[in-house]
Amino acid sequence: MKSVETFSELRKARNELAEPVGFVPTMGYLHEGHLSLVRQAGQECASVVVSIFVNPTQFAPEEDLESYPRDIDRDTSLLEEEGADLVWIPEDEEIYPEDYQSWVLVEEVTKPLEGAERPTHFKGVTTVVAKLFNAVQPQKAYFGQKDAQQAVVIKQMVRDLNYPLDIVVCPIVREPDGLAMSSRNKYLNKEERKAALSLSEGLFQAKKAFQQGVRDADQLRGIVANRVNEEPLAELQYVSCANPETLKEQAGEIEKGLLSMAVFVGETRLIDNVLLK
Amino acid sequence: MKSVETFSELRKARNELAEPVGFVPTMGYLHEGHLSLVRQAGQECASVVVSIFVNPTQFAPEEDLESYPRDIDRDTSLLEEEGADLVWIPEDEEIYPEDYQSWVLVEEVTKPLEGAERPTHFKGVTTVVAKLFNAVQPQKAYFGQKDAQQAVVIKQMVRDLNYPLDIVVCPIVREPDGLAMSSRNKYLNKEERKAALSLSEGLFQAKKAFQQGVRDADQLRGIVANRVNEEPLAELQYVSCANPETLKEQAGEIEKGLLSMAVFVGETRLIDNVLLK
Repeated sequence: MKSVETFSELRKARNELAEPVGFVPTMGYLHEGHLSLVRQAGQECASVVVSIFVNPTQFAPEEDLESYPRDIDRDTSLLEEEGADLVWIPEDEEIYPEDYQSWVLVEEVTKPLEGAERPTHFKGVTTVVAKLFNAVQPQKAYFGQKDAQQAVVIKQMVRDLNYPLDIVVCPIVREPDGLAMSSRNKYLNKEERKAALSLSEGLFQAKKAFQQGVRDADQLRGIVANRVNEEPLAELQYVSCANPETLKEQAGEIEKGLLSMAVFVGETRLIDNVLLK
Repeated sequence: MKSVETFSELRKARNELAEPVGFVPTMGYLHEGHLSLVRQAGQECASVVVSIFVNPTQFAPEEDLESYPRDIDRDTSLLEEEGADLVWIPEDEEIYPEDYQSWVLVEEVTKPLEGAERPTHFKGVTTVVAKLFNAVQPQKAYFGQKDAQQAVVIKQMVRDLNYPLDIVVCPIVREPDGLAMSSRNKYLNKEERKAALSLSEGLFQAKKAFQQGVRDADQLRGIVANRVNEEPLAELQYVSCANPETLKEQAGEIEKGLLSMAVFVGETRLIDNVLLK
C-alpha cells in the first residue's frame, strides 16, 4: 500500500492505479464500519483508494474538532491488512490553502435532520467530498448508511453536478449488542456506553412494530423516543420518520421510512437509523 | 466530428477520445474569439470537446437570456471546419433536471466588477462550469481573456476544488477597428456599433499612456472614462484598474493592472479590458 500526503503525489499515484478505482473517504480512527467499505470496494473495483482527513469545515466552532480521535499508524496498518492500494492523508493546508474561497452547496436535502441541528455541517461535507472526488477521480465511492442523510446528500450532489461515478451505500456495522459503530463511541464512559444502547434498541423496537403492522409515523417515532427517555444519561435531540429519498418528514400512515435520531449521551452526540420498508 | 446531447451519450463519446482532452465551454453563436480557443486546444491536445449551452442560471431575470443569439447549425459547421472532435449540445433539462439543488460558489474574486453589477452571475457560471468539467473530465480547458474576471474566478475554483486540469486563457480577438468580439455585438445598430468603439479606444489610450509612464490608477481610469463619456449613445457602468490576480481595486501608483470596463451602448451591455504590465 502506498501512502501519500500532497495533491501532486496523489495524482501521480492515482494515475498508476488499475481502473475502476473505488474510493473510501474517511476521517480516520477506523472501525469495522469503515473497513466494511474498504472490503466492499475491494470486491467491486480493481484498485482501492482511502483518504483520511478530519475535515475542519464540517465541524461547528462548539463541536469536537480538536478532540476528534486520531490514530494514523493504526489506521494505516488496518488499511494495509485490508488490501487498500493507496491512502491519502493530506494536511489541512493542502485541502484549505491560504486564500481558499470555494464551496459546494446542496440545498433541499441538507435542510432537515442533521442539517437543522448542525447548520454549517453539510456545506463542509459536500465541499470536501467534491474536492476529494475531483482529486481522486474514482469510478465508485463508498459511504456508510450510518450517516444516512450524508449518503442522500452526496448522491444528490453527484447527480446534480454530473460526477461520472457511482455512490455505493453500505449497511451499518454494529457492535454485538447493537450499538452502531462510530469513532465517537470512544468518548463514552462505562455508564454512557450502556445508556447509548437506547438508540439501537429504540430503533429495533420500532422496526419490529413496523414489521408487525404499525404504520403510523407518530407512533413509530414515539416508540424510539420512549426508549431513549428511559435513560437518565441520554437526551433525545430529534427522532424522525422521513421519506428515505427526499428526507421530508412523514405524517400518518407510511409505506416506507428512514427512522433516524440524534441523542446526546453525556457530552457525546450519537446518531443512528433504520430503514423501514 | 461527433455531436451529442445527453450526458450518457457524452460520457460514451468522451471515453473514446484520445487524451489529453482539451475542452472549450461556450454559449454558442460562435465568433473568431471562440474559434481561436478551439484552435489553441487543437494545437495542445489530442482531442477537442466543445460544449454549446446558453446557461440560464448565469442570467438575471431582467437580462437577455431569451434574446441571446443562437445558431446551432452555423456553430456546428464552424466547429467541424476547425477540426473539433466532439460537440456537446445539452438541453436545459439535461443540465438542470427537476429537483436540481446544488451550487458551486466562489467567494472573494466574484464580488467586485461584474459580480457587483450582476450579483447572481458567477454562481451560475461556476456551477455550470463545474458540471461541464465533471462531465467532460478534460485535461485542459480554454477561456477567453475577454471575460477577464470569469477567467480569474474559474482558475480560483479549479485550484480550490482540486480539479486536475489546466486553465488556458487566450487573448481577446478584436474586429479590425478594435471592438472586442462578442456574441452580443449582434444587438448593435449602425450608430451603436460606432459608439461601441469607445470601449477599446479608451482602453488603448490608457494602455499607451501607461507605456509612456503614466502610473496613477485614477488617471488611467479617467482616460478610459473620458473617451466613453464623449459618446452620447454610450453609458459607462464601471471602469476598474484592479490587481490582475486578486481583482482588488488599486489606488495610487501601480505596477500592473487589469483595466476593465462595462458600458451600456443603447440597450446592449458590453465589456472589455486590457492588461497593463
